[in-house]
Amino acid sequence: MSTRPARSKRATVHDVALEAGVSRGTVSRYVNGERYVSAAARDAIEAAIAKVGYVPNTAARNLVMQRTQAVGFIVHEPHSLFVDDPNIGSILLGANTELSQADHQMVVLIVDSDRDTDRVARYLTGGLVDGVIIVSARADDPITRVVERLQLPAAYVGHPPGAASSAAFVVIDNLGAARSITERLAATGRRRIGMIAAALDRDSGADRLAGFTAALGDSFDEALVEPVPFYSYSAGRDGMRRLLERAPDLDGVFAASDAVAAGAIEALRASGRRVPQDVGVVGFDDSAWARRTTPQLSTVRQPAAGLGAEAARLVLAQLREQEMITERRLDTEIVWRESA
Amino acid sequence: MSTRPARSKRATVHDVALEAGVSRGTVSRYVNGERYVSAAARDAIEAAIAKVGYVPNTAARNLVMQRTQAVGFIVHEPHSLFVDDPNIGSILLGANTELSQADHQMVVLIVDSDRDTDRVARYLTGGLVDGVIIVSARADDPITRVVERLQLPAAYVGHPPGAASSAAFVVIDNLGAARSITERLAATGRRRIGMIAAALDRDSGADRLAGFTAALGDSFDEALVEPVPFYSYSAGRDGMRRLLERAPDLDGVFAASDAVAAGAIEALRASGRRVPQDVGVVGFDDSAWARRTTPQLSTVRQPAAGLGAEAARLVLAQLREQEMITERRLDTEIVWRESA
Repeated sequence: MSTRPARSKRATVHDVALEAGVSRGTVSRYVNGERYVSAAARDAIEAAIAKVGYVPNTAARNLVMQRTQAVGFIVHEPHSLFVDDPNIGSILLGANTELSQADHQMVVLIVDSDRDTDRVARYLTGGLVDGVIIVSARADDPITRVVERLQLPAAYVGHPPGAASSAAFVVIDNLGAARSITERLAATGRRRIGMIAAALDRDSGADRLAGFTAALGDSFDEALVEPVPFYSYSAGRDGMRRLLERAPDLDGVFAASDAVAAGAIEALRASGRRVPQDVGVVGFDDSAWARRTTPQLSTVRQPAAGLGAEAARLVLAQLREQEMITERRLDTEIVWRESA
Repeated sequence: MSTRPARSKRATVHDVALEAGVSRGTVSRYVNGERYVSAAARDAIEAAIAKVGYVPNTAARNLVMQRTQAVGFIVHEPHSLFVDDPNIGSILLGANTELSQADHQMVVLIVDSDRDTDRVARYLTGGLVDGVIIVSARADDPITRVVERLQLPAAYVGHPPGAASSAAFVVIDNLGAARSITERLAATGRRRIGMIAAALDRDSGADRLAGFTAALGDSFDEALVEPVPFYSYSAGRDGMRRLLERAPDLDGVFAASDAVAAGAIEALRASGRRVPQDVGVVGFDDSAWARRTTPQLSTVRQPAAGLGAEAARLVLAQLREQEMITERRLDTEIVWRESA
C-alpha cells in the first residue's frame, strides 16, 4: 500500500502560448478546433502542448462549444447479453467504427437495473453526449422518455413501442423474415412445428412470433409455442425441454435466435433425438453461434454490424442538421445449412 | 423524412426557484448534491424541476465541482472480444453493479483501432471521467501513458508491463493456475501435451504459457506450443488444426481460454479424435463456454465478475482519497469435468 501523491498543478493555455510563441487566442482557436490556425502555429502549439503537458479542460470547452463530440450507445439488456448474444457485440463495433471515422467518441452506457435506468437518464440530461444510439429498448422505457423530452438526436436499433416519434429507427423486417424461414421449414415436410419465442416484451421478439403464426396459418397450434425471457443459450435449452414434455411428437422448431437454437439442439440431443433427421431446427441472426452448432444452423442472416453503422450515420446526420431519416430498413436473407 | 424541430429554450435554475418558492441558492445546493437542503425544500424543488422541465447543465456543474461521477471502463480488444469472450462481459457487469451502487456512471470506451486509441486518450484528458478501469491493456499502450501523465485514479484488470506504477491492479495468478492445471492434465497419464497459447502480448497470455512451461519441466517441447493471436473460438480451431499437422501423436492440450478450447475440441472432432479418450483437453476461465462443449470442459475458474467489482472498488477508494491499494489478487480454482 502507498498513498497517492497530490496532483501537480495543471499547465494552462498561457503556458502553451508562451512556449509556442503565439498568442493565447491562437491557442484557444486551436484547442476549440476552429479554423484559421496556420500550419506553422499548429505545429508550434502541438509541440508546446506535449512539452508543458497541457490538458484542455473539456468541461469548460463544452460550455462554450455546446458539443461534446460524444455519442452514447445505450444497451438495455440483462446479464445474458454480453455473454450470449454476439449480435450486440457486432452492432456495437459497427457503430464504433462509423463514429470513430467521424471523430466522435462512443460511450457505452449499460442499463442492468432500475438504478441504472435512473442514473443513465440523469447522465443524458447532463449534456455529456450529443446524441444516442439505443438498442434493446423496451416498451415505456424511462430512457426513451428522457430522450424525447430533451429532443436529443437519437437512433434506435429496432422499433420499441412508445419510442420518441421524432427519432430515427434502423430495423429489419422481423415479421417477414420469421414468416419466410418458418415456411421454408414447413416445406421440408415437417408437420408439427413448434417455436421457442424469446423476449416478447420487445419488438423483435413479438414480431418473430407474429411471423411464425402467420406462416402456419390454420395449422398453428398455440400449445407448440414456448415463451422464454431472453435470447440466450440456457433459455433455449430449458425451453426446448419443456416443449418436448408437452409435445414429444414435435418434428420442427423455429428458435427465436441462434443462441436459443444452440440450446435447443443440446436439449434435443440430450433427449436422444437427431437433428435434422428427427427434428429440423432453424434459428435467427446468423451470428457466430450458427457455425458452432453440430449440425450447423439454417437461419436468417441479419446485418448486425450494418445496423450499428447505420444507426451511427443517422445520429451523425442529425448532428449535422441534415435531413432527418425516420426509418431505414436493412435486408435479411435465409441461409440454409444442415440443421433443417 | 421530416425536419427536426428547433430545440425549445431550456428552463433555468431561476425558473425552478420561482416555481418551488425557494431561493436560487437552495436550488443550486440541491442540484450540486450538497447537504443542508431541507426535506420540504427538496420535495418542492423536485416537483418544480419536473414541472418546468429543468435540465441541470452538467458541463457547467463539472466546472465547479471538478467531478463528473463517471468512471471510464476501457476495453482494448479486437473484434473477437464481444463475440467470443464471455469473461469481458462478466467483468464489465461486475464493475457496473459496483459503480451503480456508489451512484457512479460507468462509460465503456472501446479501443478497436489506432484512431480509437488517440481519441480515447483525448477523451480522458478532457476530464469527462473521474477515473478509469482498464482491461486488456497491452505493453506500451498509449492509453496507459495518458492515465499516468494525468495521474487519473485507475485500476487495471491484469498487470500490463509498463502500466502506471501509481495505479491499482486486480489480478489472478495466471502462472500458478496454468501450472496447476497442466500438472493435473499430466497426472492423467498424458505423455505428449501441447498448448494453444493465445494473446502473448498480454500479461495473461504470457503468464499462462510460462505456467505451462514450468509444469512440464524437462519434458517441455517447444514444437508443441501453437501461438494464436486472440482468445477466440476460431483461433482455437485453426491453432488446433496446425498443431495436429505438426504433432499427430499429441494426447493432451492446454488451451489458453475456454473459447480456444471449444474451437480445439471442434478441430479434434473433425480430425476423428475422441475427447477425452484420445486427447484430453483443458481450458481456462470457466466461462459460459465451459458447459457448452461436449464433453464439458475441465478448466480453471476465475472470478470474472469479482475482478470487475474489485477494480471498481479500488477506483472508488482512490476517488474518496482512501488508502491506496496497489494490488489485489483474487483466487482461482480448478474445476474438473469430462474433457480430460
